[in-house]
Amino acid sequence: MARIVQKYGGTSVADLAKIHNVAERIIRTYQAGNEVAVVLSAMAGETDRLIAMANAATADRPTPREYDVLISTGEQVTVSLMAMVLNSKGFPAKSALGSQVKIITDKNHMAARIRKIDADFIVRELEKHRIMVIAGFQGVDRKGNITTLGRGGSDTSAVAIAAAIRADYCETFTDVDGVYTTDPNVYEKARKLKKISYDEMLELAGAGAKVLHQRAVELAKLYNVPLYVRSSFNNDEGTLVTREDEEMEKEVVSGITYDRNQAKVSVIHVPDKPGIAARLFTPLAERDIIVDMIIQNASIEGYTDLTFTIPKKDIKEVEELLETVAKEVNAERFIIDPDISKVSMVGLGMRSHSGVATKMFDTLAKEGINIQMISTSEIKISCVIESKYTELAVRVLHDAFQLEMEG
Amino acid sequence: MARIVQKYGGTSVADLAKIHNVAERIIRTYQAGNEVAVVLSAMAGETDRLIAMANAATADRPTPREYDVLISTGEQVTVSLMAMVLNSKGFPAKSALGSQVKIITDKNHMAARIRKIDADFIVRELEKHRIMVIAGFQGVDRKGNITTLGRGGSDTSAVAIAAAIRADYCETFTDVDGVYTTDPNVYEKARKLKKISYDEMLELAGAGAKVLHQRAVELAKLYNVPLYVRSSFNNDEGTLVTREDEEMEKEVVSGITYDRNQAKVSVIHVPDKPGIAARLFTPLAERDIIVDMIIQNASIEGYTDLTFTIPKKDIKEVEELLETVAKEVNAERFIIDPDISKVSMVGLGMRSHSGVATKMFDTLAKEGINIQMISTSEIKISCVIESKYTELAVRVLHDAFQLEMEG
Repeated sequence: MARIVQKYGGTSVADLAKIHNVAERIIRTYQAGNEVAVVLSAMAGETDRLIAMANAATADRPTPREYDVLISTGEQVTVSLMAMVLNSKGFPAKSALGSQVKIITDKNHMAARIRKIDADFIVRELEKHRIMVIAGFQGVDRKGNITTLGRGGSDTSAVAIAAAIRADYCETFTDVDGVYTTDPNVYEKARKLKKISYDEMLELAGAGAKVLHQRAVELAKLYNVPLYVRSSFNNDEGTLVTREDEEMEKEVVSGITYDRNQAKVSVIHVPDKPGIAARLFTPLAERDIIVDMIIQNASIEGYTDLTFTIPKKDIKEVEELLETVAKEVNAERFIIDPDISKVSMVGLGMRSHSGVATKMFDTLAKEGINIQMISTSEIKISCVIESKYTELAVRVLHDAFQLEMEG
Repeated sequence: MARIVQKYGGTSVADLAKIHNVAERIIRTYQAGNEVAVVLSAMAGETDRLIAMANAATADRPTPREYDVLISTGEQVTVSLMAMVLNSKGFPAKSALGSQVKIITDKNHMAARIRKIDADFIVRELEKHRIMVIAGFQGVDRKGNITTLGRGGSDTSAVAIAAAIRADYCETFTDVDGVYTTDPNVYEKARKLKKISYDEMLELAGAGAKVLHQRAVELAKLYNVPLYVRSSFNNDEGTLVTREDEEMEKEVVSGITYDRNQAKVSVIHVPDKPGIAARLFTPLAERDIIVDMIIQNASIEGYTDLTFTIPKKDIKEVEELLETVAKEVNAERFIIDPDISKVSMVGLGMRSHSGVATKMFDTLAKEGINIQMISTSEIKISCVIESKYTELAVRVLHDAFQLEMEG
């Protein structure tokens, strides 16, 4: 017998037939003698429908407080439907909203962070052999205002609940059946990983892999919650995201991922003086624009070039900002190139194995792929390349590092 | 300056354009220096959409607890949209759910009754010059489970809130602009009443008029809340439902209404013994089937006929029940006639004026309309007639009592 948290994403509960399928899986887990707490997202498309409604209702941006009241109905619909389906199949189930489980968050509407969860409430129900069906993505602040955690927040809800009720593990069900060495849609030789460390998963998520929300992995690492990534459409074992062990260390590279949602910004011929970077990046930070890679060229005759990446969706805003800021810092001009892609390799083994970066650069060079930017961390190397080479780069790197074979 | 509760029904907030119109009306009331608490229903059609979803999800009846969690999202959507629209027009507004205003109800899911409202919460916000936008139709029981008040419950929410915050009056906006002497769709001579007493309104609502929910009127009477019935589509003054005054007493008949949703059941040749009525009606009551008019014929040679009306929607269930029950009470047979209609006249003046009933029967007789059943109360007379004569009966009675002229 175990205490298990199962999280099902929007595609897994997209319609009534899928909700019935998920109900059957929940029942199997429950009937095996486990305590089951379920965390659900809104039906696929529902959140977008509600967001469109909010945007249509108001000329400017909808008030964040009211936006959260509106959007949180999405999960309220799925948890009540799931609980009534489980009830109608003869199983004791009860839905609970963020306000009822007391998922207390900060006041930061639309991107709130969980502060506290009333574990007793959930545990009490589980001990009465009830299946708890909990709305993901939502909480309440200390005054009882409804908050939401931002996109992908249901993963975070699930892990936070698993930590709070000391679950044995947390399973997140999505439309892919695990974490792969790379995107199987890009390369058919992609291999599903049995296990991956929290840190590798964090780097993969940060580098563009969409299987798990980064904050959920951070939380899982913090509270040491074993996290299974599985598909709700088959019974495959999935991938376990967990603490590092010796076996993992042997893998030089665990996964290759790519991110096409970045654009490259170059600010050309800037006087190389202290404070220039701050003056460039502060206005971006103030508008919550996330600058990822930053490179500053060596200074030549007191001038330098600054290159960085930004999310593609922010191009227009950055362009407007730089019209002013570039003049202020006496830059010659700036260029925004949306036609790029970031390819990243992640692996714990990079810590002890030298030569990984060189091999990556060589492999890309052999194919005539020019590297425009490079950034490295302890267990990750990322290269910015021209967008059209993305799939090619992923394939040749996958082959070069023999990822199709188990390490 | 007054403290006002405004309630807008589903047709008044059916789409974003209508929500904007309602927002403008709220703003006008607010800008005139009033404190405004708004109570909203779900967008027209939304509750039905959610109910259909619940019915499709489960083979049998959905669990009432989960049904309420699902259905209550309807009002959550409208209050958040309305609050964000008011905000975007530059006005301080805040939505509140049943759980947030602490509309405490009993545990009777799908038909809960309000027990208590946290008036302080609302008053505090109103005194900060905020427009409160409160979800109608919903509450929470003492344990925090979401409950709903049943169809038409938003009227009840509005009146209960008005009573709790000691509002000067409560306005309910619908798609008709007041209470008429009869349905204007049936008779173009129908006249809008300026004022009507709680008791008359109760009898009209009970007799089929759909302007106000009966429970709301009961509550308004209990707490003496002046209640305006107005249209959200024009600026007409509407009808004030209030305490009796001398002026009202002069009106012999205030309104004529009809109800086509009843069916007539006759149980023929029943032994006239004590306990027969109980044995007939107990099984109906146990299934929440509302028996309206009941007539028992004079006993002839120890046998009698029992005739009563039931809601048309319950015909099938009553038929099944009577198959057994009629045998048990040794009735000869039973007949269910769905082809009837109940026409009712309501007026405070009936108390002091004799001859109203006689005039009613005469008027119908002159048109060759046979009266199948009669029931009377202190201020109401109802006749069951053949359904096809409904409009004719309404028109001739309206003329006979000269309702087109102000009394």
